[in-house]
Amino acid sequence: MAFPILSAQEAAELIKNGDNIGLSGFTASGSPKVITEALAAKAVKEHEAGRPFKVSVFTGASTNNHADGALARANAIARRTPYQNTPDLRLRINSHDCHYFDLHLSELAQKFRYNTYGELDWAILEVAKVFENGEVVLGTGVGNVPTYAAKAKKIFLELNTKLPEGLYGLHDIYMPLDPPHRREIPIYTPSDRIGHPTVKIDPSKIAGIIHSDAYDGIKGFTALDDTTLQIGANVCNFLIGEVRAQRIPQEFLPIQSGVGNVANAVLFGLGDAKELPPFAMYTEVIQDAVIDLMRMGRCKFGSTCSLTLSDAKEAEVLDDLDFFRDKIVIRPAEISNSPEVIRRLGVIAMNTALEADIFGNINSTHVVGTRMMNGIGGSGDFTRNGYLSIFSCPSITKGGLISNIVPMCSHIDHTEHSVDVIITEQGVADIRGLDPVQRAERIIDNCAHPMYKELLRDYLKLGKGGQTPHHLAASLGFHTAFQNTGDMRLTDWSQYA
Amino acid sequence: MAFPILSAQEAAELIKNGDNIGLSGFTASGSPKVITEALAAKAVKEHEAGRPFKVSVFTGASTNNHADGALARANAIARRTPYQNTPDLRLRINSHDCHYFDLHLSELAQKFRYNTYGELDWAILEVAKVFENGEVVLGTGVGNVPTYAAKAKKIFLELNTKLPEGLYGLHDIYMPLDPPHRREIPIYTPSDRIGHPTVKIDPSKIAGIIHSDAYDGIKGFTALDDTTLQIGANVCNFLIGEVRAQRIPQEFLPIQSGVGNVANAVLFGLGDAKELPPFAMYTEVIQDAVIDLMRMGRCKFGSTCSLTLSDAKEAEVLDDLDFFRDKIVIRPAEISNSPEVIRRLGVIAMNTALEADIFGNINSTHVVGTRMMNGIGGSGDFTRNGYLSIFSCPSITKGGLISNIVPMCSHIDHTEHSVDVIITEQGVADIRGLDPVQRAERIIDNCAHPMYKELLRDYLKLGKGGQTPHHLAASLGFHTAFQNTGDMRLTDWSQYA
Repeated sequence: MAFPILSAQEAAELIKNGDNIGLSGFTASGSPKVITEALAAKAVKEHEAGRPFKVSVFTGASTNNHADGALARANAIARRTPYQNTPDLRLRINSHDCHYFDLHLSELAQKFRYNTYGELDWAILEVAKVFENGEVVLGTGVGNVPTYAAKAKKIFLELNTKLPEGLYGLHDIYMPLDPPHRREIPIYTPSDRIGHPTVKIDPSKIAGIIHSDAYDGIKGFTALDDTTLQIGANVCNFLIGEVRAQRIPQEFLPIQSGVGNVANAVLFGLGDAKELPPFAMYTEVIQDAVIDLMRMGRCKFGSTCSLTLSDAKEAEVLDDLDFFRDKIVIRPAEISNSPEVIRRLGVIAMNTALEADIFGNINSTHVVGTRMMNGIGGSGDFTRNGYLSIFSCPSITKGGLISNIVPMCSHIDHTEHSVDVIITEQGVADIRGLDPVQRAERIIDNCAHPMYKELLRDYLKLGKGGQTPHHLAASLGFHTAFQNTGDMRLTDWSQYA
Repeated sequence: MAFPILSAQEAAELIKNGDNIGLSGFTASGSPKVITEALAAKAVKEHEAGRPFKVSVFTGASTNNHADGALARANAIARRTPYQNTPDLRLRINSHDCHYFDLHLSELAQKFRYNTYGELDWAILEVAKVFENGEVVLGTGVGNVPTYAAKAKKIFLELNTKLPEGLYGLHDIYMPLDPPHRREIPIYTPSDRIGHPTVKIDPSKIAGIIHSDAYDGIKGFTALDDTTLQIGANVCNFLIGEVRAQRIPQEFLPIQSGVGNVANAVLFGLGDAKELPPFAMYTEVIQDAVIDLMRMGRCKFGSTCSLTLSDAKEAEVLDDLDFFRDKIVIRPAEISNSPEVIRRLGVIAMNTALEADIFGNINSTHVVGTRMMNGIGGSGDFTRNGYLSIFSCPSITKGGLISNIVPMCSHIDHTEHSVDVIITEQGVADIRGLDPVQRAERIIDNCAHPMYKELLRDYLKLGKGGQTPHHLAASLGFHTAFQNTGDMRLTDWSQYA
């Protein structure tokens, strides 16, 4: 069967105002790169002509500047889920031009199949190869492709010539049945393969093939500074201590690591922590540092939802796929982030906090409680079900104007019930088995920056009793001081007395 | 092998200051009834003699007046987890006499096996029968018995003569291997049995058998009032609508229901909702209403961690076990509350909120943000992994002095990411797929009490932007107004302008 070849503009012309669209990929990796640009251009024209034009966009996680970026600049996104990290879309979300709802990444595919969000008009899928029967080899990220391909009425395939056909075999495509017919997800070790190397698409749904030719466009991480290096070292020393104390098995356990500079520093530290055996990852994102750890033999296997690599590293991996073929599997998000599998494997979950409060709650999403940064992503999937759940962040931001350890989080994404350990460059607070006041004392002592310790201790004295002795009127005092003066250090507890 | 018969006092004498003790049961059901009373008496004597005496108590969930009640009155509990609901213990927790940490019930057994909380000196297990090889038939609640029996250095068995040997066969005792050796938990329908009817105990660890003779001492629920009946009707109508809309399969899905009067009203409503097919439960607690639903043929099977029945209903069930034998299975807490199984089965999770905020967060534990009520219990296990997660509560308490719909929860146990539907006697707010402001509008419109709608709408206008437009200084204004005046209606937003 020969599929029609379309230009991105021809494809975009077929998409209507109000349509629901599912995009391939997870982070920029595997996200479409050309149709969404053309769709944004169409939206601009429609808006100039006085006609409404917005679509709802469902993805695996964040996307890229071609998709979220272009569509947001065109104000063409009506509804968006489950995660994003594009500056222009962030602006639209915080100004209420776009209705964004922030969802655990493991849940979107099944919620879609449960008919929670309506019908899917289109799927736009980046692929490395199309077979005549409609089967496709995906790119560097999977996300929710199996579900979008099954549910979409019509499908566009972006055939990216930068992607070698040798990607065949790296993916493991599996879609569980839905309740009450669901069975176990039969993964018992990170390298288990349970599905197919391709996505099987009904060929009658393929509306066209569109050519593209670009890497994922991801920038390298900034160089590690002393603070992030110290956080990484603290995480590694903590893990070594847990193995010594036999609270982590001697053979170690699979690791999940979030994205960003702190996560990168942790991975860097693991490369050096020779007291730990070579390890496997069961994670949602493999970033540059993991590739280096694989070259060093420190990371022996990575199960992921995407290869979120800088362009240079992506080219290196795609040119040397034979080395990585037995070391990487790329899975759908509901499998990479499956609570069932995460709990079974005993994943050590390591994620980054925007802020932590002294009682052990974590804010991952909202700046000063109101402005959405990116979203919860997969952090909840791993934190809630991991063997051990670690959050790390620098103790301060902006040279100390902001303390990331606060009396009460201004928004809570992970509750005290799900957080085991908090780590900053100052130290490690293992809060397992502690009551709220004990947690507060340990977090202040071990994690807060010295310039904030006394302010936090004084807050703890303000409370008038109860197991969690908050003083409610003062509890967000750090944040309101920052709003009023630009400096949390100017918090004045006496005004609440 | 003949095991020594001890008095409760003799047993208590063997327990030392600082010991860690694991108790059988889940709620009052299956909890020990005599040794803990003797232990409390010993603690009083030790304290009178000027000697320290406290033990750490690990359970399945809450216990009873003989255990938590007596030990708390004697101020004999050093550490306590994962849940409690005894007034005297609540006082000790809120005055910091007892270090209580509030944990998802599915996690305690595995955390114990991961060596997170130290060694277990004693297990005290209520049993219906002891075999010569050390096998025991448990009572009406299991909790974490398999793990406590395996980990404890020594074990006391409370042989309760009120419990018939016919309980043999109602339990399904299964303990998963720990990572990296864990396999799937092979439950695919609520009635699947995967383990043994007895707990196999190393006979050399049995330090003695102690006789007891009492029902669990649970009181019946108070009569349903108009508010709780309306909440129950709203839940049922919502579920019927979801089946009609084909967002819930026609064969329906297993139900989990929390404990208490609101939960009881929901179950009562399900008995009448003949448009729904007879249903199964995959839940942690079976209370009186479920027994009636089984008699009516409305509930066809119940998988649970305990039979939490009033004494009269307990006697009725224990006298007629043959009727219930193919309708009930009692499992360990890590299985009844397993995230893996809950997500696989597609459980409809229905739990009660203390308060909900307009953005969809839930407080299940802390009164006015500071005083611990009971704990999170299993609500997080089910909410986070259910097919559909519903929270219900009355819109107001104390005749309107308190609104249970607030601008910002004073403590968060379930985040916006995990909450699908909020239901009060006023109506239903289905917040799936909505952004924060849309959620706020729907919750205020559909769930808030009319006497609070304008105050809540005015709060929403105070915020200065961002996706979640909180006004941080005012966000806990309902609570501080209540602290200052005893009436949330007296909240004055103008003071924050």
